[in-house]
Amino acid sequence: MHLNPDRFFDSDPEIRSLARELYGSVKNLPIISPHGHVEAKILAEDLPFPNPTAMFILPDHYIYRLLYSQGIALESLGIATFDGTPVETDHRKIWQIFADNYYLFAGTPTSLWLTHELIEVFGVNEKLNSKNAMAIYDHLQNQLQKPEFRPRALYERFNIEVLTSTDGAADSLEYHRQLRESGWKGRVIPCFRPDALVNITESGWRQEIEALSRAVGFEVNTYQKFIEAIENRREFFKSMDAVSTDQGIESAYAHRLSLKDAEAIFQRALIGRADAEDNRQFTANMIMEMARMSVVDGLVMQIHIGSKRNHHQRNYRRFGLNTGADIPITSEFTVNLQELLNEYGDDPRLTLVVFTLDETTYARELAPLAGYYPAMKLGAAWWFHDSIQGMIRFREMVTETAGFYNTVGFTDDTRSFPSIPARHDLCRRVDANFLAGLTVRHIIERDEAQVLIKALAYDLAKKTYKL
Amino acid sequence: MHLNPDRFFDSDPEIRSLARELYGSVKNLPIISPHGHVEAKILAEDLPFPNPTAMFILPDHYIYRLLYSQGIALESLGIATFDGTPVETDHRKIWQIFADNYYLFAGTPTSLWLTHELIEVFGVNEKLNSKNAMAIYDHLQNQLQKPEFRPRALYERFNIEVLTSTDGAADSLEYHRQLRESGWKGRVIPCFRPDALVNITESGWRQEIEALSRAVGFEVNTYQKFIEAIENRREFFKSMDAVSTDQGIESAYAHRLSLKDAEAIFQRALIGRADAEDNRQFTANMIMEMARMSVVDGLVMQIHIGSKRNHHQRNYRRFGLNTGADIPITSEFTVNLQELLNEYGDDPRLTLVVFTLDETTYARELAPLAGYYPAMKLGAAWWFHDSIQGMIRFREMVTETAGFYNTVGFTDDTRSFPSIPARHDLCRRVDANFLAGLTVRHIIERDEAQVLIKALAYDLAKKTYKL
Amino acid sequence: MHLNPDRFFDSDPEIRSLARELYGSVKNLPIISPHGHVEAKILAEDLPFPNPTAMFILPDHYIYRLLYSQGIALESLGIATFDGTPVETDHRKIWQIFADNYYLFAGTPTSLWLTHELIEVFGVNEKLNSKNAMAIYDHLQNQLQKPEFRPRALYERFNIEVLTSTDGAADSLEYHRQLRESGWKGRVIPCFRPDALVNITESGWRQEIEALSRAVGFEVNTYQKFIEAIENRREFFKSMDAVSTDQGIESAYAHRLSLKDAEAIFQRALIGRADAEDNRQFTANMIMEMARMSVVDGLVMQIHIGSKRNHHQRNYRRFGLNTGADIPITSEFTVNLQELLNEYGDDPRLTLVVFTLDETTYARELAPLAGYYPAMKLGAAWWFHDSIQGMIRFREMVTETAGFYNTVGFTDDTRSFPSIPARHDLCRRVDANFLAGLTVRHIIERDEAQVLIKALAYDLAKKTYKL
Repeated sequence: MHLNPDRFFDSDPEIRSLARELYGSVKNLPIISPHGHVEAKILAEDLPFPNPTAMFILPDHYIYRLLYSQGIALESLGIATFDGTPVETDHRKIWQIFADNYYLFAGTPTSLWLTHELIEVFGVNEKLNSKNAMAIYDHLQNQLQKPEFRPRALYERFNIEVLTSTDGAADSLEYHRQLRESGWKGRVIPCFRPDALVNITESGWRQEIEALSRAVGFEVNTYQKFIEAIENRREFFKSMDAVSTDQGIESAYAHRLSLKDAEAIFQRALIGRADAEDNRQFTANMIMEMARMSVVDGLVMQIHIGSKRNHHQRNYRRFGLNTGADIPITSEFTVNLQELLNEYGDDPRLTLVVFTLDETTYARELAPLAGYYPAMKLGAAWWFHDSIQGMIRFREMVTETAGFYNTVGFTDDTRSFPSIPARHDLCRRVDANFLAGLTVRHIIERDEAQVLIKALAYDLAKKTYKL
Repeated sequence: MHLNPDRFFDSDPEIRSLARELYGSVKNLPIISPHGHVEAKILAEDLPFPNPTAMFILPDHYIYRLLYSQGIALESLGIATFDGTPVETDHRKIWQIFADNYYLFAGTPTSLWLTHELIEVFGVNEKLNSKNAMAIYDHLQNQLQKPEFRPRALYERFNIEVLTSTDGAADSLEYHRQLRESGWKGRVIPCFRPDALVNITESGWRQEIEALSRAVGFEVNTYQKFIEAIENRREFFKSMDAVSTDQGIESAYAHRLSLKDAEAIFQRALIGRADAEDNRQFTANMIMEMARMSVVDGLVMQIHIGSKRNHHQRNYRRFGLNTGADIPITSEFTVNLQELLNEYGDDPRLTLVVFTLDETTYARELAPLAGYYPAMKLGAAWWFHDSIQGMIRFREMVTETAGFYNTVGFTDDTRSFPSIPARHDLCRRVDANFLAGLTVRHIIERDEAQVLIKALAYDLAKKTYKL
Repeated sequence: MHLNPDRFFDSDPEIRSLARELYGSVKNLPIISPHGHVEAKILAEDLPFPNPTAMFILPDHYIYRLLYSQGIALESLGIATFDGTPVETDHRKIWQIFADNYYLFAGTPTSLWLTHELIEVFGVNEKLNSKNAMAIYDHLQNQLQKPEFRPRALYERFNIEVLTSTDGAADSLEYHRQLRESGWKGRVIPCFRPDALVNITESGWRQEIEALSRAVGFEVNTYQKFIEAIENRREFFKSMDAVSTDQGIESAYAHRLSLKDAEAIFQRALIGRADAEDNRQFTANMIMEMARMSVVDGLVMQIHIGSKRNHHQRNYRRFGLNTGADIPITSEFTVNLQELLNEYGDDPRLTLVVFTLDETTYARELAPLAGYYPAMKLGAAWWFHDSIQGMIRFREMVTETAGFYNTVGFTDDTRSFPSIPARHDLCRRVDANFLAGLTVRHIIERDEAQVLIKALAYDLAKKTYKL
């Protein structure tokens, strides 16, 4: 098993050769990861990853959701439960199941990332299968004990320039502080994500408000105090080097409530009487408020739209959030974002990066909007679309209307630390190939392609996120 | 006129040569046709097809709808009417019109299937046109009289392993019985389709209930008896070798009604007072019930979503159902199927195969759902999308999220018997080319492609439908 | 800088060489422009274009919207305001801004059209950039003073056979009359666009009714007189060589109101009391009425669906209509057009050409409808989709269901006169390449491709619009 140097490039010799050249010019650029879910804790503590299963499988719902789809119980894969259901704890057994079913991943980006990780990061030279599963497990386990496989060493080997975590609004950012005080040169910055405070009908919302109260040092018992607390926490995040916020929201609907209406909903929420429509209106209002705050404090505003979370409710009760059961729904931006864009869309102080799970909005809504409103930029092909065809569709449907410069480079959004270089490498290859395809058809010129590949791989992310 | 051995393959030499090899490994595999509309009667009676027009044109709305779209009256094409309007009965005249307008089919799969049929099945060696129309008609007519062009002979020549018909719930399956008793070795199995019993607002519904009552031997005058009758008929179909059910439904909305509500709607339907909302709720309930029954009896459950039937109402009154006037509408699966998937989606006894006419749901909803829920699988690109580009879009939008193993192989769904091998051949070629494209870009490996082409051409259908 | 003769063709040698041949057979065919926004006045007066900025930038929101999206104020680009806000009047300064930011257009069709125009029409041989901006400005300015760069000379050089303008219902068509009386051989015909009369809730609607009253010579104070006036104006347009009408409408919803209801809405509109639902119903009714009138007078009916106009309301108040702030929304045709198609869809006297901004409707709704209803044809990939990938998606999603002959050739829809040959040339190249791709994969035959390229480039437009 080896990584073909021309992988993911078109087989046409003209395109392939130019893609190789363009990719070659950026393959060694540092990685900017402006949004993701690797925890700062990992780098702050810098402990060895305990074993291959804990490193590759347990944090990565891309992997276990596909195994589950073929009838393999999540319990047998060791996914932790909240309801006391026992789960497999023998990590070797879990790895064996994974290896036995590795063929299921053919054609998915997960298989491409894993292949990259196993070969490039861990020096595995055979394709994982039932027979070699334990030998590869042992090899990986052995590597993981070495100092050069500790998180910070990997961070450096991966050539990461900035790594952004995602953190709740009330988070102490203790690990970020530790990292900063450690003298280590890696740059691991937080991103402010207030979702748990915005979802007023979630069961844990009251506790989140209490955590927020503790974090700000006053009781958050009115809407105005809530807003003040959010502003306060944004300032704190900014003081801890945050450059951005993020909201994961089902709908892009943005609408400012009157203070009176917002307060009334907030009070209903406090006594557990807010309903779904309250939640919808409160969320719409908070999108407006987050934009207003970004205008003031300069944090880049990100919104991720269109996932129906926790689709399988029994599994949600058993396994909790973020276990692969979030399913996309139709999204709408033209009408939903109109109020926000009318109010802030031409404000030079705002950068609004929009991500979607509904590709039908690329050409119809997002590219036309981003190709008009100065504040709005398009986030990369995201989540289920962080894939070769997903990226190609993104570029093909966005570029002709919005150009390249209203997009913001690649976002890995990963929970799997060792997948970071694999994901960025794949994107750089796909972008190089896309630009090569445009060049050989004389849609762009060679010198433009050379500038653009660098913009897509590095410059645009750095500029958009003010890094 | 000949069939180029590399047809439908990419012109890139690397892809073409590998596609040729992959296709070569499956081109002679038997055909499994797990869903379609060729009637068992044809094979039970094994009579010669009367003439080329009756064989190619009259049963195939793919053909006459396109002629109609260019202003050719359906009456002039001999499409039977229900309202007494006279239609052309001279089959040679109809064939001449078809030949005169054959150029209209350029770029459509219909033209590719017809070319395959005319050359491969009937030994025609000129492209149909105005001048040779009658000569080709005569040639075909001559062939059709020969024993080797009778239905069973063709079935054998086509190398069909299983052919599935689609049959109403009250159908006696008389022709299936005849076939079974004939000693002929062909395997022609029924599929249970209860649509006419589910559409409670259709004008013929009362008669369907009466037919059902006769079939089960008791009066179906309550909802509970209705359910009992459906279960009873499913058992009968199963005893007649059925392995699956099918429902063609406008919306995927699934929702269980209380027994009381279901009964109330059923009683309103019996007295002709059910309205559109009753129909919607009753249908949603029947999707749930069909899933429940499949869990019990093991029949594979298929749902075909998103066609607005009989769009042209005047033509519907004149020509009836299934005459090319069914037009797709937007579909939704994430919300609509949630209740069903929450209840049965992880039940190992259920296989739910979902077909859509709304390609926007492939990447957004269907692949994420099928890549999570163990019971759910994705049916092939269907109907208007049973075409080269349709299949490519399906694979490109589905594979990266759901892999190949959550899809079920090819479904021809045809009403035209001689089109079966043409349709399967086209799909095998497109799949071979798709896999070749992945391989030359090093997205999958050659040995994976070799396994996958067989899975897509044969294994997955056999496994999914338990054949 | 030069125009590569193989631009926009696939790099595969087989496809490229056939594309070159097919394109070669149509590149010199006359241009039929059946729909656009170049004003007849330009050709009637035949004055020199005042300067490069006025020619290229000021009329073309494709250009300035993208500059605006990157934070360049519309005022600094000289876009005229309605509210007295001062704007840049130094056209050289504006040109310099344009040149400084020309790199933003990489990958957009605008850059391809401009390159074509600068090289082919104006003999510029360097790529526009900050340094050569003024030199190129001077060169262009110099050219524009020459007789061979006057509008009629360019019209002739562009080899235009028919150019269609778009004109309000009350327009006097004075410039069309001048052109006709001038003895000049160019054919510049009007198209009847009644939008301003149909949008009963627009602020200017009363004045439009007054203008209509003056144009027809009687007071339009009832719905019946309104209809009579529309019919009257259509007759006038027809007498001035119009062959078509056009309506730009947010939704395709078509529904006939009773005379009583229509009259009631009309009377509410006259006293300024019509609301959004009135507008929706009145518009739906007018789609039906326009179809009815087309059946009578034979004008080809065009509808352009799915743009939410004037999304940025502050900019709308300042800069007015058609300044790049129209953003597409989801569209629906299957249900919305059912009443219209049931009533007129099989009437041989009607030609209904449908344009969409929602590409998801191509394969799902529009191709199935156009592949069935004789009256309905599909307009070309439009506006944001008038681009290489936009055209490819159109052909790929439409052809397999509707064939080529239910489409109508290319519509440039441009406001920029010198872009006309560039836009038609690009489309001819993309179509040639598409047909070459089908041919090398043996989906169509070479002789079919040769006929089809001429159909797409010329014949279909001529036939559809009865030119």
